Amino acid sequence: MPHTVAQIAAALGARFEGAGDLTVTGAAEPAAASPFDLALAMDPRYADGLAKGRARVALLWEGADWAAMGLQAAIFAPRGRLAMAGLTRIFDAGPAIAPGLSPLAAIDPSAEIGEGAAIGPFAVIGANAVIGPRARIAEHVSIGAEAVIGADALLLAGARIGARVRIGDRFIAQPGCVIGGDGFSFVTEERSRVEEARATLGKPEQTKPQSWLRIHSLGVTIGDDVEVGANTTIDRGTIRDTQIGRGSKIDNLVQVGHNVIVGEDCLLCGQVGVAGSTRIGNRVVLGGQVGVVDNITVGDDVVAGAGTLITSNAPAGRVLMGSPAVRMDQHVEMYKAQRRLPRILAQIADLQKTVKNLREKGGDGDP
Amino acid sequence: MPHTVAQIAAALGARFEGAGDLTVTGAAEPAAASPFDLALAMDPRYADGLAKGRARVALLWEGADWAAMGLQAAIFAPRGRLAMAGLTRIFDAGPAIAPGLSPLAAIDPSAEIGEGAAIGPFAVIGANAVIGPRARIAEHVSIGAEAVIGADALLLAGARIGARVRIGDRFIAQPGCVIGGDGFSFVTEERSRVEEARATLGKPEQTKPQSWLRIHSLGVTIGDDVEVGANTTIDRGTIRDTQIGRGSKIDNLVQVGHNVIVGEDCLLCGQVGVAGSTRIGNRVVLGGQVGVVDNITVGDDVVAGAGTLITSNAPAGRVLMGSPAVRMDQHVEMYKAQRRLPRILAQIADLQKTVKNLREKGGDGDP
Amino acid sequence: MPHTVAQIAAALGARFEGAGDLTVTGAAEPAAASPFDLALAMDPRYADGLAKGRARVALLWEGADWAAMGLQAAIFAPRGRLAMAGLTRIFDAGPAIAPGLSPLAAIDPSAEIGEGAAIGPFAVIGANAVIGPRARIAEHVSIGAEAVIGADALLLAGARIGARVRIGDRFIAQPGCVIGGDGFSFVTEERSRVEEARATLGKPEQTKPQSWLRIHSLGVTIGDDVEVGANTTIDRGTIRDTQIGRGSKIDNLVQVGHNVIVGEDCLLCGQVGVAGSTRIGNRVVLGGQVGVVDNITVGDDVVAGAGTLITSNAPAGRVLMGSPAVRMDQHVEMYKAQRRLPRILAQIADLQKTVKNLREKGGDGDP
Repeated sequence: MPHTVAQIAAALGARFEGAGDLTVTGAAEPAAASPFDLALAMDPRYADGLAKGRARVALLWEGADWAAMGLQAAIFAPRGRLAMAGLTRIFDAGPAIAPGLSPLAAIDPSAEIGEGAAIGPFAVIGANAVIGPRARIAEHVSIGAEAVIGADALLLAGARIGARVRIGDRFIAQPGCVIGGDGFSFVTEERSRVEEARATLGKPEQTKPQSWLRIHSLGVTIGDDVEVGANTTIDRGTIRDTQIGRGSKIDNLVQVGHNVIVGEDCLLCGQVGVAGSTRIGNRVVLGGQVGVVDNITVGDDVVAGAGTLITSNAPAGRVLMGSPAVRMDQHVEMYKAQRRLPRILAQIADLQKTVKNLREKGGDGDP
Repeated sequence: MPHTVAQIAAALGARFEGAGDLTVTGAAEPAAASPFDLALAMDPRYADGLAKGRARVALLWEGADWAAMGLQAAIFAPRGRLAMAGLTRIFDAGPAIAPGLSPLAAIDPSAEIGEGAAIGPFAVIGANAVIGPRARIAEHVSIGAEAVIGADALLLAGARIGARVRIGDRFIAQPGCVIGGDGFSFVTEERSRVEEARATLGKPEQTKPQSWLRIHSLGVTIGDDVEVGANTTIDRGTIRDTQIGRGSKIDNLVQVGHNVIVGEDCLLCGQVGVAGSTRIGNRVVLGGQVGVVDNITVGDDVVAGAGTLITSNAPAGRVLMGSPAVRMDQHVEMYKAQRRLPRILAQIADLQKTVKNLREKGGDGDP
Repeated sequence: MPHTVAQIAAALGARFEGAGDLTVTGAAEPAAASPFDLALAMDPRYADGLAKGRARVALLWEGADWAAMGLQAAIFAPRGRLAMAGLTRIFDAGPAIAPGLSPLAAIDPSAEIGEGAAIGPFAVIGANAVIGPRARIAEHVSIGAEAVIGADALLLAGARIGARVRIGDRFIAQPGCVIGGDGFSFVTEERSRVEEARATLGKPEQTKPQSWLRIHSLGVTIGDDVEVGANTTIDRGTIRDTQIGRGSKIDNLVQVGHNVIVGEDCLLCGQVGVAGSTRIGNRVVLGGQVGVVDNITVGDDVVAGAGTLITSNAPAGRVLMGSPAVRMDQHVEMYKAQRRLPRILAQIADLQKTVKNLREKGGDGDP
């Protein structure tokens, strides 16, 4: 869909100069831009790219001389990535979910479907489920019995919402995510080898048979404005619900274990794993592939770099790296020392030789 | 569904005191318990919580004075987590899979469906598949041609069982798991750079073109009483089957490669990855995000902590941690040394200076 | 299906000796082989197994004396694993996707379906989607509006192809993979704590509220001869497409972030994660659970061992290991030093004592 420069600037809350009625249909990197694209050149290092491409209008850094670059118009945005959020929203055609309820969906007659909701083919909505107004539910989604989903939800192909899961407004579920699988909670009749290994610091008694009994799982509660990534899994809690707080965003292939509590406005990046009964505070950011062990507390505003393994409680505000996790500055120091280590070992050997010589020379004669 | 205190105690094989005919409809943490919940307070440190909540009956530690706590009844269970398995089973409403075969399922006429099996809408059952008695198969499940599944299976929404996969009794498949995807086994016509890197310890010859031919995959065999987590993937073997032994439980987002053999009564926690042709013994416990490389053997009763990377054969009974994995006690020692390292490097620099001084003073004059 | 020894040898481009008209119906490990299996014994260490099994014909190492082993025929293949690719292809029955378009599929009338394509029950094909000739599309697959898929595709159960995704010829999608989920790209109105942590090396200012705005996602482009594993997720790019190059093979549960570019003929093993906007060169091999952070470049022909965390640009041809990644030889050296570290610390303590003694003896008196 074409938009004018003036419309785009208004939507971004940004300022424009030049031909405000020029229209574009998409956005592109400067060198690849066609005459119908808005070139994205929010930094002077993109100026060369602009010369190579054919854009007539660009999103530019403050103070750029757009006329001299051969452009017909320019938009100036003070914070580039924020402008990106606006721009990509403008140009995103979004998923094509036909309005209304597909005759090919299996909707239990007792389910309550909000006004203006759209439900795609082969979706399954269970008994007494409650779906909020204006929900868009794609093909192959399944929503279990008595699940409750708020207003303006977007559930993409094959998302699975288990029975009795409760979710707030404006929820986004990427394809294939599973909310409300059973928790992985098993117990042995006797003390298990894992319990022994913990109790004995790695020296459990010898082999004995053990078989695992399931601790059954009950519920999940999710706040408003939460997004869950493709093929991510969030397990039910036992006794109390697993909880995801308002505004938190969860990437693809993330595992959230039973009884975990994730606070508000958190980001959990791709392939993060949070084990059972751990509490994550508010505004926590966990980088890709971060692991958090079970039954610990990660404080508010903690930031953990990619691949960090958090094995013990982390105080609020801490920035963590490493496996196991330590403070970022300590990690950097430890890592530098580690890289020097092979050289240092050689120096120590030298030192030992020298000291030996000194002792012999000095006639130092301890036995 | 309401249960009496006496019924619950009997189901748990536990002892109760007080009003055995009191009924409850769920279980809760002590502070959050309503008068219709059984409060879970298996340790004296929960006593405060009990005072805050409104429970009339609790699951208590041995010797607790329930009457003094204002309760009307108490259940005493010697092993708390084991009692949890019983309790959550009592209160779990379970998935709502309507009895009988949904008219919206696509069941091949040649498939053999056991007595009392329930199959949900949009499930697909392939030619000559065999489904045991009392199986409960939810919506969107697909079961390939000639697959065989034993009695009392529970397959949740969107579980995928490939053609010719063979599974024992009481199998549980969480939503979205994939049993019998093709193994990731490719070969190049010439020796590949990976083979060279291994052969030359990281100094392969220079670049050359390579393209990958698929080694096709054949089967998977799974024993009785196995559970597979949400979105977990278990690949087919080449030549011989990938195997999961009786009683093993696999968590969410786990990857089990082609030709892997997992023994009996193992636990594989969330996001574990086991690469091709590796053998895992019996009663092995792999913590979250553990990786096991291809073509090795992990002995019986091995326990590996979260995030461990197992890169070589592990003897039976060993407790492993670290990346690459070492014995737990050695890991702890190495890690402590590593944390001291930056300080130690400073001490070594001091030592070098002192020794230099001593040598100069002593007129020690090697060139 | 039975094949004669002569047919198999011809299909493998290999030489046979003995009874070329003997037929077999499968392949097996030597000790487990029935008289109707081709035993796989490509190395002399399998000779014992042959004696235990009941095979009449085997795939053998060059120069083996098959008659003395009691066999009736033998096939000789110079490169064993390559022969495996041919063999397993011969014996693989493949997925059973019935020819033609299932009456239970929901195919938009505006979609263009190539000649000879097969589409299974409950598949959903969106408006204006284009499917190439001879595509085999299994049950529960969904293909979004305006997506384009080339010739001879094989899409297995529940694979999800998003709207407007473009894919080349001979594409293979394992069950449950998601191509074209939305990228995980969020921005805060003010500078976020992650940006601060990076700018201040881990000492961000104190807590403040932050909430996340989505940067919308646009497209994915995939070349010819690509394979994507079960439950793997490939996100859309923002502005320019996420790209997977010709001939690359991606294993199960892999995460490819928004705007990533993967080159040609790469292998990404199970549970690899590549974060947003990173570029992976040609012929790169990433072992299981490798992580690659965002916005870096990994050169052509890089090989990274299992569990490697690549945190900065990697030059072409490098072999990497460790977390964070270093050259393989350096990693081995560092790791050896690390294992010696606890012992070395004891030696340093000794050395300090000796030097102290020497100083005292020598009357060395600095303050």
